[in-house]
Amino acid sequence: MSYNLLKGKKGIIFGALDHKSIAWKVAEKAYEEGARIVLTNTPAAIRFGEIEQLAEKTQSIVIPADATNVNDIENVYLQGMEFLDGKIDFLLHSIGMSMNVRKNRPYDDVDYDYFLKTLDISALSFHKIVQVAKKLDAIEEWGSIVALSYIAAQRTLFRYNDMADAKATLESIARSFGYIYGREKKVRINTVSQSPTLTTAGSGVKGIDDLYDFTDRMSPLGNASAEECAAYIITLFSDLTRKVTMQNLFHDGGFSSMGMSARAMTMYCHSLNPEE
Amino acid sequence: MSYNLLKGKKGIIFGALDHKSIAWKVAEKAYEEGARIVLTNTPAAIRFGEIEQLAEKTQSIVIPADATNVNDIENVYLQGMEFLDGKIDFLLHSIGMSMNVRKNRPYDDVDYDYFLKTLDISALSFHKIVQVAKKLDAIEEWGSIVALSYIAAQRTLFRYNDMADAKATLESIARSFGYIYGREKKVRINTVSQSPTLTTAGSGVKGIDDLYDFTDRMSPLGNASAEECAAYIITLFSDLTRKVTMQNLFHDGGFSSMGMSARAMTMYCHSLNPEE
Amino acid sequence: MSYNLLKGKKGIIFGALDHKSIAWKVAEKAYEEGARIVLTNTPAAIRFGEIEQLAEKTQSIVIPADATNVNDIENVYLQGMEFLDGKIDFLLHSIGMSMNVRKNRPYDDVDYDYFLKTLDISALSFHKIVQVAKKLDAIEEWGSIVALSYIAAQRTLFRYNDMADAKATLESIARSFGYIYGREKKVRINTVSQSPTLTTAGSGVKGIDDLYDFTDRMSPLGNASAEECAAYIITLFSDLTRKVTMQNLFHDGGFSSMGMSARAMTMYCHSLNPEE
Amino acid sequence: MSYNLLKGKKGIIFGALDHKSIAWKVAEKAYEEGARIVLTNTPAAIRFGEIEQLAEKTQSIVIPADATNVNDIENVYLQGMEFLDGKIDFLLHSIGMSMNVRKNRPYDDVDYDYFLKTLDISALSFHKIVQVAKKLDAIEEWGSIVALSYIAAQRTLFRYNDMADAKATLESIARSFGYIYGREKKVRINTVSQSPTLTTAGSGVKGIDDLYDFTDRMSPLGNASAEECAAYIITLFSDLTRKVTMQNLFHDGGFSSMGMSARAMTMYCHSLNPEE
Repeated sequence: MSYNLLKGKKGIIFGALDHKSIAWKVAEKAYEEGARIVLTNTPAAIRFGEIEQLAEKTQSIVIPADATNVNDIENVYLQGMEFLDGKIDFLLHSIGMSMNVRKNRPYDDVDYDYFLKTLDISALSFHKIVQVAKKLDAIEEWGSIVALSYIAAQRTLFRYNDMADAKATLESIARSFGYIYGREKKVRINTVSQSPTLTTAGSGVKGIDDLYDFTDRMSPLGNASAEECAAYIITLFSDLTRKVTMQNLFHDGGFSSMGMSARAMTMYCHSLNPEE
Repeated sequence: MSYNLLKGKKGIIFGALDHKSIAWKVAEKAYEEGARIVLTNTPAAIRFGEIEQLAEKTQSIVIPADATNVNDIENVYLQGMEFLDGKIDFLLHSIGMSMNVRKNRPYDDVDYDYFLKTLDISALSFHKIVQVAKKLDAIEEWGSIVALSYIAAQRTLFRYNDMADAKATLESIARSFGYIYGREKKVRINTVSQSPTLTTAGSGVKGIDDLYDFTDRMSPLGNASAEECAAYIITLFSDLTRKVTMQNLFHDGGFSSMGMSARAMTMYCHSLNPEE
Repeated sequence: MSYNLLKGKKGIIFGALDHKSIAWKVAEKAYEEGARIVLTNTPAAIRFGEIEQLAEKTQSIVIPADATNVNDIENVYLQGMEFLDGKIDFLLHSIGMSMNVRKNRPYDDVDYDYFLKTLDISALSFHKIVQVAKKLDAIEEWGSIVALSYIAAQRTLFRYNDMADAKATLESIARSFGYIYGREKKVRINTVSQSPTLTTAGSGVKGIDDLYDFTDRMSPLGNASAEECAAYIITLFSDLTRKVTMQNLFHDGGFSSMGMSARAMTMYCHSLNPEE
Repeated sequence: MSYNLLKGKKGIIFGALDHKSIAWKVAEKAYEEGARIVLTNTPAAIRFGEIEQLAEKTQSIVIPADATNVNDIENVYLQGMEFLDGKIDFLLHSIGMSMNVRKNRPYDDVDYDYFLKTLDISALSFHKIVQVAKKLDAIEEWGSIVALSYIAAQRTLFRYNDMADAKATLESIARSFGYIYGREKKVRINTVSQSPTLTTAGSGVKGIDDLYDFTDRMSPLGNASAEECAAYIITLFSDLTRKVTMQNLFHDGGFSSMGMSARAMTMYCHSLNPEE
């Protein structure tokens, strides 16, 4: 079902990999809601993923770019605005990577080149896509920018490693730049803090299934899916949310406001008191 | 412009007084978006306000009720469901009153009967409308409940008095009941923390104009209007935000994330350094 | 070991019941650190508890008072200041009670008279002891007021019921009054949000042992004990923390900043994957 | 006046420059409270500052180190532990620098090499001093680590630039590592978010005097001084606060919990309504 919420709007989606990606669902949903879009990801992700299928399905193009590279980002806007025939109304940033996680470096034995890379890829890339957009005046007044985040920015989860710090940095950048871009061009910037999601990227994390079970039982509405996240992000791109900015918005079935649920406690207690 | 975001949905709006009320704008907007609604307010508010006009405009009815009275609330649901021919999909709570504020009792000389009344009217009324709804099973699965709040729940503003404590209580009730109603009926409950708004109720507060100027200059997007607030609340009533619950959502042009803006500081410094 | 941190200071402790009470430990510790104190609790608590022993041990007196009764509170200050021979430097509020909890009324079937009573006893009593103190000018400049709170004020825990809302109200009152009392008399007001503690009051709560195990495994330093809480509160009464005010301070071994620990997850997974 | 709160304890202070520095005051105060300490700063800071005087006054030594350099940090611990004749009980991190601020690069035209340097110097240096300490097992059980932060980590202040993001990263690192170091060695890690302070570093910031006036009028207890901050940090190093970890603790006279004070509003209104 479509409401034409984004009718006439134009957007760029950073970070769709395959059909499980949240960015993929956002692209589909934005298209359904009447938007025209452009997709971008790294050359490697384009090769290994299925993004060309998405482009076909959504009548968009794929512009390869390394989101840590300012020139690449400039090119995305220039080619993107040409394809879309005008300025952008919305942007999605769904990018994150930690070599410390990939190489199993525990948080008390991180490699600092990796750590800086984690921050550069997962957080500074967001600053770069916003700064370049602003310099090119690529975004319409009252445009909307969203980046995907995770509650690890506020609360420590074992194994999440330096990605927690990257997400905290990302959310700070959203606030800092939200002030500047808001006062000058009425562009709003928010982050969406999503439930753990079984994407291709997420599924690789060791123990993710157990964590997923826990957060699902803790959340009164259960974990939020990638599709549901996409639907929510559409509202943030629409004209109905123009005065929401500099916020980190939890889309997590209630998890962030829970201390302990009856369902999770019951499961926990099975182990505590096995004879019961 | 309408998106039919609430097509086929049914709702009850507590607290519309006149055309400046946020609840009034929500009623209008919900109607435009395809919902059928019922209005309710106290007999006194109905007498002094213009709510009958709103009912006419939105093809709804007005059911008088004191929102601190459980029987009155029951009646609202029973008559409301009869008029709407079925269960409710969304509820708005926009109710607040402090006798300590009205009678100019400063916060260090409050009357405690008034204080309890402030909590009863401005916070417990919210618990009551939710508890009664749940007992009557009056809300559809995946229904959405919103209450209006204010940043005084987190940060002290002089003169806001015991209303600050009432808003903190209100937001806590939204979380506490959001857990229960979410796990059992998938109903979500959130509060929207809105910019200071020049409603008839708000305008009565001494010094509100000065505060309004300050928050406007602090917020990169300026203060949010009642209309904008209504638009935002519509998204929370829609099916696009089903997994957002137990949250306090700032709709304030960015104010809540600001420490100091250049614009507000410039105004402040005029006084500090008048010769500049 | 004593540092004489409170040498020459005078304080009133509300809410000590027996030797397990946090307020009891605070009284002992304050005495050890050189303070002179006065104790108060309800007549019933005095009868059933062991507070007279504490008075003997700490060379203090017990003044019976119902902390919801303004006249009783006045009497505590007047008698207390007479006994202590001067104004007060610090106050502890450790008071909470919910009839809804006691009578097993679930949160979606609360009794509203009980709910108001919960708020009156557990939150407004704090406002009352502060307002009366200020009216009597009973607190020295740079005095320190602390109330005990719990993370249920921010995050929902099943079964905590309307006490969650009471703690949210309590923390709001600390902020609201902290502003007033700070600007006028330099008196600071904070709340300490403590780990679940196996006091006589706490032990009565159903399922508290299981929750205690969970929070202990979640917290990198384990749950904080009543003794440790008392030690922390002493620092807040001392002259070393004069500029800390209007804060809710977590004393919980790190629990409030945890999303998931390895230890708690291991226990949880025993149930999930019993064959492992 | 001394309480001997740190009697027998040993500590390392990173970042004292001159007698206005918070780190300087912490060193003095720790020494007064019975601790033995070691000082460290960059060779340049040692040259331009007055740290040798501090070393003399506190019977400590100065070990030059670049806190972004792991080898230098190792050397600080090895030499430090030799001088102190044993493991460390407490650490202070008071380090921050932004080339974007120094070179007047506005936040929408930052240089990204500078940005990474800001993060490396102001945030990752904290991770490094903790990771190296843990690898060398240089900190006693129940040791205490504190880093200085600022409210810009939560709320945007114009001109604070990428230092805001660095402080957000710093606070996240404190949480992430607080979990690890807590569970394994009972070491606690917290950040103290201090009022704007007229240190030599702080005084260089354009407009700091105006901001200082604003925060002073907003805070019911006024801005916190460097001396007061030092006193507070001593409590966090003491054995009285052993279960406080992974927290960001505001030491700011109440500023962080204020929305608007009467005093600040009066000043603001002078400009708004000059004829009044």
